[in-house]
Amino acid sequence: MMKSCTEYLWFNTKAKRDYINLTDQVSEIVARSGVKEGLVLVSAMHITAGVYVNDAESGIIQDIDEWAERLAPTGPDYHHHQTGEDNGDAHLKSLLIHHQVIVPITEGELDLGPWQQIYYAEFDGQRRKRVIVKVLGE
Amino acid sequence: MMKSCTEYLWFNTKAKRDYINLTDQVSEIVARSGVKEGLVLVSAMHITAGVYVNDAESGIIQDIDEWAERLAPTGPDYHHHQTGEDNGDAHLKSLLIHHQVIVPITEGELDLGPWQQIYYAEFDGQRRKRVIVKVLGE
Amino acid sequence: MMKSCTEYLWFNTKAKRDYINLTDQVSEIVARSGVKEGLVLVSAMHITAGVYVNDAESGIIQDIDEWAERLAPTGPDYHHHQTGEDNGDAHLKSLLIHHQVIVPITEGELDLGPWQQIYYAEFDGQRRKRVIVKVLGE
Repeated sequence: MMKSCTEYLWFNTKAKRDYINLTDQVSEIVARSGVKEGLVLVSAMHITAGVYVNDAESGIIQDIDEWAERLAPTGPDYHHHQTGEDNGDAHLKSLLIHHQVIVPITEGELDLGPWQQIYYAEFDGQRRKRVIVKVLGE
Repeated sequence: MMKSCTEYLWFNTKAKRDYINLTDQVSEIVARSGVKEGLVLVSAMHITAGVYVNDAESGIIQDIDEWAERLAPTGPDYHHHQTGEDNGDAHLKSLLIHHQVIVPITEGELDLGPWQQIYYAEFDGQRRKRVIVKVLGE
Repeated sequence: MMKSCTEYLWFNTKAKRDYINLTDQVSEIVARSGVKEGLVLVSAMHITAGVYVNDAESGIIQDIDEWAERLAPTGPDYHHHQTGEDNGDAHLKSLLIHHQVIVPITEGELDLGPWQQIYYAEFDGQRRKRVIVKVLGE
């Protein structure tokens, strides 16, 4: 029988850019859902944030941050800033990293590889932002 | 009870590169599907186009276009062009932006954040191209 | 009635970087699953590999490889390397290309566009690595 379950996670980071490991929270939502076989979507609800799967190692997190800044630099001269905004770079970083992942659920648990962790990537923080976690399966 | 519904959207843009807001069309397909809780996949069926979620603001769309062109530039010297094609950049832009998104459906509606809009990104237009919209849920 | 099916594909490439067409294998898994309408997730279980949809043309594969190397270059100076690793670039390439795709299933078959093929992108090979294929539908 098909089941679904939806929860929202809220963030308000102190730093402009920050990286938060969501794996435990997503795992608990999957456990609460009762879904044994299925998928869980973890998706940022804002256009200046990302969700990705990678390593929980502080060096690589710093590398990811510097790489996103190199490919989508902070700067004053985005067209978007003519609206009064100053976060053009954060929109592009969101597209670069992608704003969502799907994690498979097998035998009631997140079916992740040995080093895979789910991260929220904040690119324009210091305000309340949200991630949707939707479980679908049986 | 599980339901699914599949529709296809067709595009033929006048410009080589163009960005089209699909949110209303996807929303109508979800309404027609009768799915109340689930997911909708919106996925380009071509390898020189993308689908992304971001802002419906003309400045940021121009920023995205210039950024994609900077990271995956139009040019004569791609290996792919030895086949007679001239759209190597469009393949890379498709990978950069990604060719698909999953949008959650909650209480019968697209569960998007306040500024999230679904966009089709054409990188090699002036021909007929297609996007699949597949709804899955209950 | 909802069905699901999970299989794992193993790879051990001779080259450090390599690109392997998975379309036939994924298609066979979908056939075995008996799912007629649904989705199949194809997702790398490692943080130095990607899964993408694009062309089975050797020139564009070489272009993708050179492009990933240009935007996320091999190099000695990643923070991640302070752990003793030397594959910082492969983590970034995995984020650039993305580590997963969802392929729609319609009337029992992969609903891909005319040139769309599913690829495994190895960025740190010469070891055993895994891709999960999970089918969900009815």
